[in-house]
Amino acid sequence: MSSQVQENLVSSNEKYASDFKHGALPLPPAKKYLVVTCMDARIDPAAAFGISLGDAHVIRNAGASASDALRSIIISQQLLGTTSVLLIKHTGCGMLTFENRDIYQVINRNLGQGATGELEAQSFDFQPFPDLEDAVKEDVEFLRKSQLVAKGVEVSGWVYEVESGRVRKVI
Amino acid sequence: MSSQVQENLVSSNEKYASDFKHGALPLPPAKKYLVVTCMDARIDPAAAFGISLGDAHVIRNAGASASDALRSIIISQQLLGTTSVLLIKHTGCGMLTFENRDIYQVINRNLGQGATGELEAQSFDFQPFPDLEDAVKEDVEFLRKSQLVAKGVEVSGWVYEVESGRVRKVI
Repeated sequence: MSSQVQENLVSSNEKYASDFKHGALPLPPAKKYLVVTCMDARIDPAAAFGISLGDAHVIRNAGASASDALRSIIISQQLLGTTSVLLIKHTGCGMLTFENRDIYQVINRNLGQGATGELEAQSFDFQPFPDLEDAVKEDVEFLRKSQLVAKGVEVSGWVYEVESGRVRKVI
Repeated sequence: MSSQVQENLVSSNEKYASDFKHGALPLPPAKKYLVVTCMDARIDPAAAFGISLGDAHVIRNAGASASDALRSIIISQQLLGTTSVLLIKHTGCGMLTFENRDIYQVINRNLGQGATGELEAQSFDFQPFPDLEDAVKEDVEFLRKSQLVAKGVEVSGWVYEVESGRVRKVI
């Protein structure tokens, strides 16, 4: 059975594919950079950050976490030749609104003790943060200092304002 | 000093923000779903999958890995109310082209023994896969069976063809 969400995917994609002209793009990003940003529904990276199809890797997770993105960043740099990272967190991020103990409580209520126990056994960190600009700086420093990121790689940190559509540089 | 990549971000974003009309969108995704797809430069999820601004969380990592996305998926479902997951891997994926030992060798050559040692100490898995459709099915099963995903959540698996722009359902 196909839900409305699946039907929207199929019908929207039919329109997109009917006019598709980019089938010969190569695998490595043409402009050799990658963007790490949040999964937030209010961000359209291609439009807001000027990424044309084929130009850049785009990694997205809750809060634009650099450590969460590390596996993807290493692959992007070591196998596909990217040499620049734009790390872009945003105003109004959900990660500013809770602490680990809050989500553990929600999970315990919704999914039961077994789920919470699995997370506790792993000391699972959902990576919320209390201050947006500090979080940007910390993630940029994490990547700049990591021995898993080549010294020549340029790493910069930004904030996207969901209220205005504007980006501003933090570091 | 600002690189060409940073200059492109700033100048493209100025144009985007000058005409921005979506500053009042709420934090939770309006259509209550999330998409997990690859970081690949040839994928524009908003355009190819019909995601309007504000509608859905979009999680992207190397290979559209469900386990890598788990932290983000739990936050999306438990704190922001999403109830449907579209997991979309793609043809021509870089993850089909290597094995862990290959990337370990590359890292050893490019970043030195210290970097490789850090990865080995963690048994770091880059999560390459040898078969595309099997990988989609395995990731969907992983989410369907996980006690960290609520039973009512709909999880489906798809392949996006970078050659044609088309999606097709796998599971």
